[in-house]
Amino acid sequence: MQRYSQLFGKTNRESKNFESLNATLLQKAGFINQEMAGVYNFLPLGLRVLNKIENIVRKEMLKISNEVLLPSLSPKDYWETTKRIDKIDILMQTIGANDLSSKKNTSSYILNPTHEEIITPLVKEYISSYKDLPLALFQIQTKFRNEARAKSGLLRGREFRMKDLYSFHISLEDLEDYYEKVKQSYFNIFEELGLKDSTILVKASGGDFTKDYSDEFQIICENGEDIVFLDKKTNTYYNKEIAKKEIINDGIKVSEAGNIFILGEKFSKDFNFTLKDKNNKDINIFMGCYGIGTSRIMGIIAEKFNDDNGLIWPENISPYDYHIISQSEDLETETKKIIEQIEKKGKTVLWDDRTDIHMGEKLSDADLIGISKRIVISKRSLEKGGVEIKQRNSFDTKIMTFKEFANSI
Amino acid sequence: MQRYSQLFGKTNRESKNFESLNATLLQKAGFINQEMAGVYNFLPLGLRVLNKIENIVRKEMLKISNEVLLPSLSPKDYWETTKRIDKIDILMQTIGANDLSSKKNTSSYILNPTHEEIITPLVKEYISSYKDLPLALFQIQTKFRNEARAKSGLLRGREFRMKDLYSFHISLEDLEDYYEKVKQSYFNIFEELGLKDSTILVKASGGDFTKDYSDEFQIICENGEDIVFLDKKTNTYYNKEIAKKEIINDGIKVSEAGNIFILGEKFSKDFNFTLKDKNNKDINIFMGCYGIGTSRIMGIIAEKFNDDNGLIWPENISPYDYHIISQSEDLETETKKIIEQIEKKGKTVLWDDRTDIHMGEKLSDADLIGISKRIVISKRSLEKGGVEIKQRNSFDTKIMTFKEFANSI
Repeated sequence: MQRYSQLFGKTNRESKNFESLNATLLQKAGFINQEMAGVYNFLPLGLRVLNKIENIVRKEMLKISNEVLLPSLSPKDYWETTKRIDKIDILMQTIGANDLSSKKNTSSYILNPTHEEIITPLVKEYISSYKDLPLALFQIQTKFRNEARAKSGLLRGREFRMKDLYSFHISLEDLEDYYEKVKQSYFNIFEELGLKDSTILVKASGGDFTKDYSDEFQIICENGEDIVFLDKKTNTYYNKEIAKKEIINDGIKVSEAGNIFILGEKFSKDFNFTLKDKNNKDINIFMGCYGIGTSRIMGIIAEKFNDDNGLIWPENISPYDYHIISQSEDLETETKKIIEQIEKKGKTVLWDDRTDIHMGEKLSDADLIGISKRIVISKRSLEKGGVEIKQRNSFDTKIMTFKEFANSI
Repeated sequence: MQRYSQLFGKTNRESKNFESLNATLLQKAGFINQEMAGVYNFLPLGLRVLNKIENIVRKEMLKISNEVLLPSLSPKDYWETTKRIDKIDILMQTIGANDLSSKKNTSSYILNPTHEEIITPLVKEYISSYKDLPLALFQIQTKFRNEARAKSGLLRGREFRMKDLYSFHISLEDLEDYYEKVKQSYFNIFEELGLKDSTILVKASGGDFTKDYSDEFQIICENGEDIVFLDKKTNTYYNKEIAKKEIINDGIKVSEAGNIFILGEKFSKDFNFTLKDKNNKDINIFMGCYGIGTSRIMGIIAEKFNDDNGLIWPENISPYDYHIISQSEDLETETKKIIEQIEKKGKTVLWDDRTDIHMGEKLSDADLIGISKRIVISKRSLEKGGVEIKQRNSFDTKIMTFKEFANSI
């Protein structure tokens, strides 16, 4: 149990309003704090949500791949090899702080915005037989992108968290099979995140890598930054770059949470990564890459699930399972009994134990923070025989006896 | 259960020899892969060890502080405020890759080597009453230091993992009380890491921050990069910078795993962080900082616990609890029964299921990888009535019946 009095990052309604709703809500509720445009501190509540999102993603990924942790720094020559050093305009480079003034320009690295340049030579070093493919590796890690405008809170960071998965195959067919598996994993993840009814698969351009489409996982969201269009004949969504005029009627506002790409032979060719088949003939390697923005998802959910009073977290990623408010200090015995019952069932509690704050303020803080279940223990609730329960996403309160409550956990 | 055939990062004895033993062993055994000097990829086995170390550290830290996640990027003006931008020669700065050639020098940030410059203004923003102190916050995160020589493997990285804790107090006495608490937490951590008998507390200079000493947690290690000296009269260790000549006899080789510092008022003064006491008088804020190098500890343990055949992991941070080798494919039923028994008790298994590799090679791979318990299932072990058990840190093998083994888990 976490006592709210001991928690760093209390609600702060005076905190500034940002251009984006997610940053405003998350900062006022004490989840994040802006360090500078596009760069955020995760306070304890925010870190708990981020960890829950990342653990849901990790659990699904481990079913279809191995986890690694690649570095944030990489040598420039890898990016020269793929010629992306000049193409990616959001690349950041490091340089010794003292060197900059003296223009010596020693020890400079790329601060990775994505990891194809790192994982392809790494896999090449370890895989020497076609029998070791298919191979899929993922990581959950911090990425850096020098975005020109970073005004969308957690939706567009200069420093942000991401899950990236890369797969290696000896044929395009094998890659396509795996690509379908990842699609299913992604749907499982978005369902667990509480986004089942709002996740749509959208066809997008394959970029430089493939003539085929890539797929975006878009979340339907009133404040979404993207628009997609439905081709009703084929029941397929297209993003605005590739949607044909004849299907364009009302667009749907969405926010991107993940995408999956056929990379084809681009990177394996750049790094001369081939294998021999059983007849000693060279096999070209086909790659796919699959991203999910984990801190971005936290932002999307904040944009999507809220009301005038604050945040409304889906159960699986609520920072705590229960938010407990006791009216006065003399109810501590009852409160601790309830907390014990909850923790016995493996659920977590944030207890607003502050004694110098009125009930009304505690209730409005609970709404702002948005934990999915709220329990009030007051003289009134005890007179009625127990505790008052309220779901954050409903207006109904309900009185339960202690016993009924214990069974409901 | 992880099948070794499906694990990325197999042993590779042909992999190059580094100047440091830890990098050589960890790379040959498939735990890490050098990206460039001072920067490493963590492969699945290495990431498991790193996660175990970090979870031990986290568990103890959560007893005495709140967890946050601060960004790697920070604005330059914070470092100008503390004047450390010119003093810390290992600072790295970022710059847009395209800007560098055009010398526009826009959007440049500091890539944080430590976080006093970030946490002090953050805490100042949230804490408005002396009643909210003491406050302690920690994070486990990636740090960046532009080390001139980075030839010690995981012992001196340009990019590395670290736990850093910062505490805030309204008096030096309160800080000193908390400082002692952290000391105890650190001893608990090093005990759980399997380093109880080799951890010593060493007095070091307090640096620019305090006239008092700081404390280093040093691990006795033959290949250690530091030397400390024991003052036998007071039973106190001093590092070589401050040891007095009269106590200097034989030094003890050690490797630093953690340090704790009284920062005093340095950073709170730089950022004008004061509070009012109950009489409305200004109180100065006293700070402490407390580090543990988590990836560095992985390196220290690799340097310290090994033999001619490979790594020897302490039980609590062994990548898996059991390494299972079955002699031939027709023993799969027995093997799977053993694995089921182990997993029922919540323990983890790496199963060398390769069918194209001889027993001898599997045994020597098990030694190189260094998982703390090895189980061999062979015709010989079955004839003798069960499975053969061997601890990696002992030469003795033992035959157990299936039932005896099940009870021993």
